[in-house]
Amino acid sequence: MTDMKNDLILRTLRGEAVERTPVWMMRQAGRYLPEYMVLRQKYGFFERCQTPALAAEITIQPVDIVGVDAAILFSDILVIPQAMGLEVQMVESRGPLLPEPIKTEADFNRIRVPDTDETLGYVFDAIKLIKQELNGRVPLIGFAGAPWTILCYMVQGKGSKTFDEAKIFCYTQPALAHKLLQMITDTTIAYLKGQVKAGADVIQIFDSWGGLLGPEDFENISLRYIRQIVEALKDEALTIIFAKGAWHSLESMAATGAHGLGIDWCIKPQLARQFAGNNVTLQGNFDPAKLLSPIPVIKAEVKNMLKAFGPGRHIANLGHGILPNVPVDHARAFVDAVKEA
Amino acid sequence: MTDMKNDLILRTLRGEAVERTPVWMMRQAGRYLPEYMVLRQKYGFFERCQTPALAAEITIQPVDIVGVDAAILFSDILVIPQAMGLEVQMVESRGPLLPEPIKTEADFNRIRVPDTDETLGYVFDAIKLIKQELNGRVPLIGFAGAPWTILCYMVQGKGSKTFDEAKIFCYTQPALAHKLLQMITDTTIAYLKGQVKAGADVIQIFDSWGGLLGPEDFENISLRYIRQIVEALKDEALTIIFAKGAWHSLESMAATGAHGLGIDWCIKPQLARQFAGNNVTLQGNFDPAKLLSPIPVIKAEVKNMLKAFGPGRHIANLGHGILPNVPVDHARAFVDAVKEA
Repeated sequence: MTDMKNDLILRTLRGEAVERTPVWMMRQAGRYLPEYMVLRQKYGFFERCQTPALAAEITIQPVDIVGVDAAILFSDILVIPQAMGLEVQMVESRGPLLPEPIKTEADFNRIRVPDTDETLGYVFDAIKLIKQELNGRVPLIGFAGAPWTILCYMVQGKGSKTFDEAKIFCYTQPALAHKLLQMITDTTIAYLKGQVKAGADVIQIFDSWGGLLGPEDFENISLRYIRQIVEALKDEALTIIFAKGAWHSLESMAATGAHGLGIDWCIKPQLARQFAGNNVTLQGNFDPAKLLSPIPVIKAEVKNMLKAFGPGRHIANLGHGILPNVPVDHARAFVDAVKEA
Repeated sequence: MTDMKNDLILRTLRGEAVERTPVWMMRQAGRYLPEYMVLRQKYGFFERCQTPALAAEITIQPVDIVGVDAAILFSDILVIPQAMGLEVQMVESRGPLLPEPIKTEADFNRIRVPDTDETLGYVFDAIKLIKQELNGRVPLIGFAGAPWTILCYMVQGKGSKTFDEAKIFCYTQPALAHKLLQMITDTTIAYLKGQVKAGADVIQIFDSWGGLLGPEDFENISLRYIRQIVEALKDEALTIIFAKGAWHSLESMAATGAHGLGIDWCIKPQLARQFAGNNVTLQGNFDPAKLLSPIPVIKAEVKNMLKAFGPGRHIANLGHGILPNVPVDHARAFVDAVKEA
């Protein structure tokens, strides 16, 4: 069915038998890699995203350098608000800035559900090039932000610990919030279908701020829209939902039909399995700060993690993105420890 | 036994019968109150903390203005690192800054376990004055940060979403980390015993960053030291532990013998009760951003919350501090809705 040389992640997501636990790392194409830093010096953030040759080079770097079992597209979740018409600035080492966020109904005049081929064609071109260059070595993961997480930035206008303004927008103007969430969802579905058509093998939905919502709000404001996305994709691609901190909704996330669920390090794997049931693959959940530990400690902790998850239906990963100050040999030790187990 | 006119919170913490659920709000003495803002304009942060008459006035404001069932001392968790010898600057609306944080063993020469009467006597003076002015109207809650949360600031030097530097300090220099945690614990125990001696009726331990640690690290790095504090105080005061986000350890927190456990809005009260067992009072857990909702929505949501907790062994509160932009009548609506239920 596939000429994929290493299809461990695909088989694990389908619930098929695998020889060993596969591994990749969130933000593996990033600042801890000196080879990435060279390109970061030379090109602006969106230049790197929008130039297929650069995005492809960055995407493939960790496959060559640390030996992960999947590549993940180099891009950013904020290409969606950008495609919808909002200005997005990426201020290096300070994070994103949307100078004119959405606050009122009038602001909706400035955004639209765009034609994604027109606005995000550069991503599809990058994916085609990456697939060509990977040549079946490992699968390619495409991704998008969950609608709630995208709303956070579109309303708050910048990063935040608590995204109070985004939450207050949802609580005080629910009709507008749902209108915005549906526009983001429609854009995201078209975008992700385009990624799959271009060659992405797996789609991960990042709900980075899902954990800021209580269980009922998570259902009403976030999961309801993630569910639409998973359903729209389910005949075309394998899907993973990673809603950081939303441990309380693992059961309902599993019920969406997603093939995988990401978990962070604040829930024990056994309890996550209990909540999520047996028909879904779990992905995670190494504490990213622990990659700064001495290598023997990393290796021992990886063993503990693998034991806690048990064999099968597990993709080893971090519980959040890799930190920029992790030495490359520590990242490699993490990957090797999973492979050697 | 007590000449306290309103001892609802004390009885609830002891597991005794109460006529209705008591209520207070974290950060109730704070920026949403115009009366507080007047004093904030006139006096610097530490001037407000260190002048007993000002601390007393600020502490009592919400009792008069919104009608809460307890006062909580106006102070800051960072008076502990300050008393230990570190410089702490409070940059208004930007948060704390510790310009010379702890990074290496040599930095320990700059800190000590201080005589708390000498360094923190101004807090005890404030408590005595508050108790006199409250004159038994409601109980007074004293507080301190959990040792892990204090370490976060002493090592990172400022606020952070993830406190990576503090975590990396613990993972790469565990002996130093435990030395620092024990010094903070010893200081905190003396400090809280002083608060109780001066008149505090209840002590709350704030582990604002407990939720950044996985369950095992939470036990080793945080709860182990909180347990020492609870044990040192248990014959002298009622204690509440609020470890935000550490839902996974409610059972072991209950086993410390603390009288109350705070929970945030990301766990359903029924599940928190299941984890914590029946011998502890739960405190929480209204989403602070929901206080911006229209008043009828606040009232309805408070009813839902009270129903979910059920009667008895519950102190109504927010799941985190009140936001500065909450209108006073919304705060009052929250308090009234609990009282009217």
